[in-house]
Amino acid sequence: MPPEKAAEIMAGEQSSGTFIKVPGETAELKERSAARIESLQIIGEVEAPSLPGAKRIKDRPIQRALVTLNWPFENVGANLSNLCATVAGNLYELSPFSGLKLLDIEIPQEFASLYKGPKFGISGTRSLCNVYERPVIGTIIKPSVGLSPKDTAQQVKTLIEAGLDFIKDDELMGDPPHCPFDQRVEEVMKVINRHADKTGKKVMYAFNISGDLDDMFRRHDWVLKQGGTCIMLSLNWVGISATAKISSHTQVPIHGHRNGWGVFNRSEVLGMEFSAYQKIWRLAGADHLHTNGIRNKFCESDESVIRSVKACLAPMFGGYQAMPVISSGQWAGQAPDTYKAIESTDLMYVCGGGIVAHPSGIAAGVRSVQQAWQAAIEGKTLEEYALQHAELKQALDFYGKVNS
Amino acid sequence: MPPEKAAEIMAGEQSSGTFIKVPGETAELKERSAARIESLQIIGEVEAPSLPGAKRIKDRPIQRALVTLNWPFENVGANLSNLCATVAGNLYELSPFSGLKLLDIEIPQEFASLYKGPKFGISGTRSLCNVYERPVIGTIIKPSVGLSPKDTAQQVKTLIEAGLDFIKDDELMGDPPHCPFDQRVEEVMKVINRHADKTGKKVMYAFNISGDLDDMFRRHDWVLKQGGTCIMLSLNWVGISATAKISSHTQVPIHGHRNGWGVFNRSEVLGMEFSAYQKIWRLAGADHLHTNGIRNKFCESDESVIRSVKACLAPMFGGYQAMPVISSGQWAGQAPDTYKAIESTDLMYVCGGGIVAHPSGIAAGVRSVQQAWQAAIEGKTLEEYALQHAELKQALDFYGKVNS
Repeated sequence: MPPEKAAEIMAGEQSSGTFIKVPGETAELKERSAARIESLQIIGEVEAPSLPGAKRIKDRPIQRALVTLNWPFENVGANLSNLCATVAGNLYELSPFSGLKLLDIEIPQEFASLYKGPKFGISGTRSLCNVYERPVIGTIIKPSVGLSPKDTAQQVKTLIEAGLDFIKDDELMGDPPHCPFDQRVEEVMKVINRHADKTGKKVMYAFNISGDLDDMFRRHDWVLKQGGTCIMLSLNWVGISATAKISSHTQVPIHGHRNGWGVFNRSEVLGMEFSAYQKIWRLAGADHLHTNGIRNKFCESDESVIRSVKACLAPMFGGYQAMPVISSGQWAGQAPDTYKAIESTDLMYVCGGGIVAHPSGIAAGVRSVQQAWQAAIEGKTLEEYALQHAELKQALDFYGKVNS
Repeated sequence: MPPEKAAEIMAGEQSSGTFIKVPGETAELKERSAARIESLQIIGEVEAPSLPGAKRIKDRPIQRALVTLNWPFENVGANLSNLCATVAGNLYELSPFSGLKLLDIEIPQEFASLYKGPKFGISGTRSLCNVYERPVIGTIIKPSVGLSPKDTAQQVKTLIEAGLDFIKDDELMGDPPHCPFDQRVEEVMKVINRHADKTGKKVMYAFNISGDLDDMFRRHDWVLKQGGTCIMLSLNWVGISATAKISSHTQVPIHGHRNGWGVFNRSEVLGMEFSAYQKIWRLAGADHLHTNGIRNKFCESDESVIRSVKACLAPMFGGYQAMPVISSGQWAGQAPDTYKAIESTDLMYVCGGGIVAHPSGIAAGVRSVQQAWQAAIEGKTLEEYALQHAELKQALDFYGKVNS
């Protein structure tokens, strides 16, 4: 189908039109409610339909186009569910398209009246962690599942003595019988509080409270009571409405985990880009947002990762920044390229094996990452900086080999 | 990568393993927490990777396989967010896979203790509509957006006088300034209640309450106060946790709209099948679930639609059926094939143009659909039945031409 015609169908279906002319569709109503095509740019031609089911007009080439649509704000209102139903709803199933990806959304200021955004964001997280002018360096409890509360707390003790700023539950860890949530929080926070009393450094731990709403409220309150400073949500599965509700209630930052993100983004021709996605979740109140990291163990390109990190840091309505959480296959090695690309240290840098498998132990692993970021900030190469910093030197020798 | 090895990585990443052996991963812990590969069947070979980003082992063919994994229930607990994080989480981004689709999930009985499922389901909906032994026949307010409350009520008046059982808001319609929710409910319910008082027939109207949780509660209560009998949620955007919360509170059925479903399913090699999806939403409490219809205006094949309808009707834990909502390009014409395939009338049959554009008017449109279903139930062809039924005859003549 000619792209102009297909875009008109998309705009119509997602506003006041339907596949057959109906009596109530007056000129006045269309003027008030129809979505408009702002621009359309043909960007290429492909040989075969990308996704199945599209109705093809015989002998017509299959064209790709970049389309900007404009909806009257009043159709949607300041309502994230309705916004998604409008810009990411039935349109993916429309038969003139053999591929459709939402690249970005511009959300009007009116949303700010209902959605207050990240309650803590970057500055709130920094002040709770007491970490400034460098990334918050973190890790994940491993194995992901199976540890008891006492084993978890023992691991936390080792990790905080090694100098980590931030630790998180794996997203698979919830409230299993072998590691009940309440007991895990109690044991872990005992260790964290004791260390804080002794040293003044209170490590942030993101407890995964994901589940039903009453349970999440109860778990949040329990985390708070034990002196915890962060809760984690599996955003896609907890959902927008419950996340916004938790955000209005929470007294600690929300660590937003995007597991399931591959469904939304892994196909080049379906779903949405992180640029659009992260705006929705910042409005819903996520303080931290997972973005993947460069040279990760997943499938995402470095360019895409960098775009995601920058997106979280770009102001919306003059603020609303979320702290990007860089993780997956990270170690000291990616610090300079990451810093060069984003020109900021406002991020969480989460390493698993990249810290705990350091040949001289976890504390050396933490120091190697701190040193790498210091090198990056000072504009030095890792090799140069490693001449004076033994832990970084060891990391380069060890992980450099593992990764090559 | 050999599929056996890739499946092991998937099982490991989504349970107790990680990409590097960690100290706490004892044999005892693995025994308790590791996911197991139950079966693996190679089903074919493809020439090129389906999705980008996969790491390919040189010269190895790209194989497709059907894999069954088994997780210990205790890893997850009766928690839908954690279930999704486990079976539909990070695994989509794993680099050994150039495509990954969740085909089905078997959910253990333990979930029934927390998730009570559809509160009204098929029997509750039938008794509210007072429609038995045939589908509940419905339509959607069109244009989707732009009408005022009075215009909407006027359209409802016409539709219920024409004999419809069920009417729904479009999923784009929320609480816009030109059609405030409260006023729309009031105006529409005045018409519905008046008609019910006069005739004894109370038409079910699904009001789209999607939005933030407090707003949804308030809107639910308002619908109830005005005598309404159904609320609608955009499931994917309201989210699982908020839907479950609404379900525990609601005093009317939840009409579950799946807009955005294309993201989850349109790619053949990414996301999930409806068989898995509908179980999650039935557990969360959706009473009605959109399934598309055969010969629809979207991209889905008839086989896939039929599987979806049957999935909603298949008992889970001995019950939990949701009423399938068949819609998109439906008119009298699809009734016999639909009935033949699903052998049930326990469904909502929602027609837009397929009823309102009937050449003899909306009432004739409704009768033509009722007649078509009666023909289907009696095992007669539409052409045969049309000899005695003028409205069906006209529908065949009119829509038959439009669709050919």
